[in-house]
Amino acid sequence: MGSRDDDGQNAEGQGYAADINSIREAQARIAPYVHKTPILSSTSINAIAGKQLFFKCECFQKAGAFKIRGASNSIFALDDIQAAKGVVTHSSGNHAAAVALAAKLRGIPAYIVIPENAPACKVENVNRYGGQVIWSDVTMESRESTAKKVQEETGAILIHPFNDKYTISSGQGTVCLELLEQVPEIDTIIVPISGGGLISGVALAAKGINPSIRVLAAEPKGADDSAQSKAAGRIIKLPATNTIADGLRAFLGDLTWPVVRDLVDDVIVVDDNAIVDAMKMCYETLKVAVEPSGAIGLAAALSDEFKESSVWHESSKIGII
Amino acid sequence: MGSRDDDGQNAEGQGYAADINSIREAQARIAPYVHKTPILSSTSINAIAGKQLFFKCECFQKAGAFKIRGASNSIFALDDIQAAKGVVTHSSGNHAAAVALAAKLRGIPAYIVIPENAPACKVENVNRYGGQVIWSDVTMESRESTAKKVQEETGAILIHPFNDKYTISSGQGTVCLELLEQVPEIDTIIVPISGGGLISGVALAAKGINPSIRVLAAEPKGADDSAQSKAAGRIIKLPATNTIADGLRAFLGDLTWPVVRDLVDDVIVVDDNAIVDAMKMCYETLKVAVEPSGAIGLAAALSDEFKESSVWHESSKIGII
Repeated sequence: MGSRDDDGQNAEGQGYAADINSIREAQARIAPYVHKTPILSSTSINAIAGKQLFFKCECFQKAGAFKIRGASNSIFALDDIQAAKGVVTHSSGNHAAAVALAAKLRGIPAYIVIPENAPACKVENVNRYGGQVIWSDVTMESRESTAKKVQEETGAILIHPFNDKYTISSGQGTVCLELLEQVPEIDTIIVPISGGGLISGVALAAKGINPSIRVLAAEPKGADDSAQSKAAGRIIKLPATNTIADGLRAFLGDLTWPVVRDLVDDVIVVDDNAIVDAMKMCYETLKVAVEPSGAIGLAAALSDEFKESSVWHESSKIGII
Repeated sequence: MGSRDDDGQNAEGQGYAADINSIREAQARIAPYVHKTPILSSTSINAIAGKQLFFKCECFQKAGAFKIRGASNSIFALDDIQAAKGVVTHSSGNHAAAVALAAKLRGIPAYIVIPENAPACKVENVNRYGGQVIWSDVTMESRESTAKKVQEETGAILIHPFNDKYTISSGQGTVCLELLEQVPEIDTIIVPISGGGLISGVALAAKGINPSIRVLAAEPKGADDSAQSKAAGRIIKLPATNTIADGLRAFLGDLTWPVVRDLVDDVIVVDDNAIVDAMKMCYETLKVAVEPSGAIGLAAALSDEFKESSVWHESSKIGII
């Protein structure tokens, strides 16, 4: 187990927070702790999409989401002295459970700051994995200041939900390595975007393997900060967000923004109705129960905006994460 | 493509309808037409069960169920002259869609006799795959006589839903070959039982590979003809059935009964409440949408009846189909 060489928030490689080598290292580091998730496909959905779609089902991942990849890479990269005092994070969702589980696997304490409007099932998951819940107000400021207070009181190390190079290079990049091992002929990948951790890792892995693979972001209309940021050429933070995809309300960070700016080919914005339709299709046709944040990739693949984009004509085999 | 050497309803091998060789042949024959379905597992569910459970997710199979295995083996085993006039079957459920799809893949007509109380979604699946729907009354007699009439009028070959050696050896046995390739250390397999086609194939494959593997049937209390048949030593048919597991209401046939009698180690009977609880657990924890007939294996694994059976202490790694 290597030790983290910094606070996890410095850039490396070609100025980005991760590269193909750090992603391959992450894959080796986390292999004992994560599932290799299956790829599903459906002839019926392909007929509707007019493309071959390959669904990388991270909903079957341990702790219910890809977040365990990043959390276990971050936590197992700590040396024993760093790890001893435990870890802290703030999250309203799947990252919270992932950090709790990875800390449990490492045998160290996990302090999880949760905003008071978090879904009950997400809090239950943290409890199930033995994480210690600390409540905060719903604002990002309160989440961050509460986590900072816990850090100061306990000496625990912060595992940032997305703006952390160990989280990016692993939790995110390893999904893409696996996907391209399972279906090497994929030419386009659609990835939900929130804080940008997942898509940064995927883009760095995909372009590291084959620069001609296109990486598209799928973003809810009510939280389209990434689309606005790409258009403006700088990070835009929204005064408020409003979408059913509760996992996609975060904004880009300073580590994820450069990757999104340079390596994400386009952002496809879809409205909540399309997300709900995609959830239904996942349930009825794929037989998979996905949350809105997970169904948005299919919604984007079926959207008019994708059909009108320049990538449409160049895509035939599309991976959906 | 070999031709079927009889009407599909003679026994072979050691007096059973299939053997490990015919199952391996089936695997090769159907490989181009079926998905290799993934195995899912959950630490949380394992903790509840007190055993390691491996879920073989045939709900992700083409046409939504394992039935495409048997249907495609039966239909692709026909020679061109046999196949030309098409195929006929009677089914209220997944076998209907499977025959329609396999016939479409072979490029021949499919006549599907459907009892008038069949779920609308199952009828829709038949239509989607281009099957020609012919309605019958709900009784098995009416289903069979209507199918016979279609046979006489069209010259189509009957693809029986379960009492057919090609259906047994393939649709069923190949699931087990795949499962044991994916998780070779499995010592026990739990299989839903209805007409006995699935479990016959699984038992013949499992015991053919390793006679010490235990095969258990999971049966709904409201249609426990197999448990009664095993107890009585002869096929028992019930005057009526009453269970939420609509796919498990058929009775054993003369080809499946000898296998169930000799090779199925025990029948675990569960009530509908336990089936519903298992469906919820599949949805919430595994994230998989399964029908009652698919969730019954988990219900059996968690049942008191299983804990009290002699197999319980000898089982540690359990495959659930």
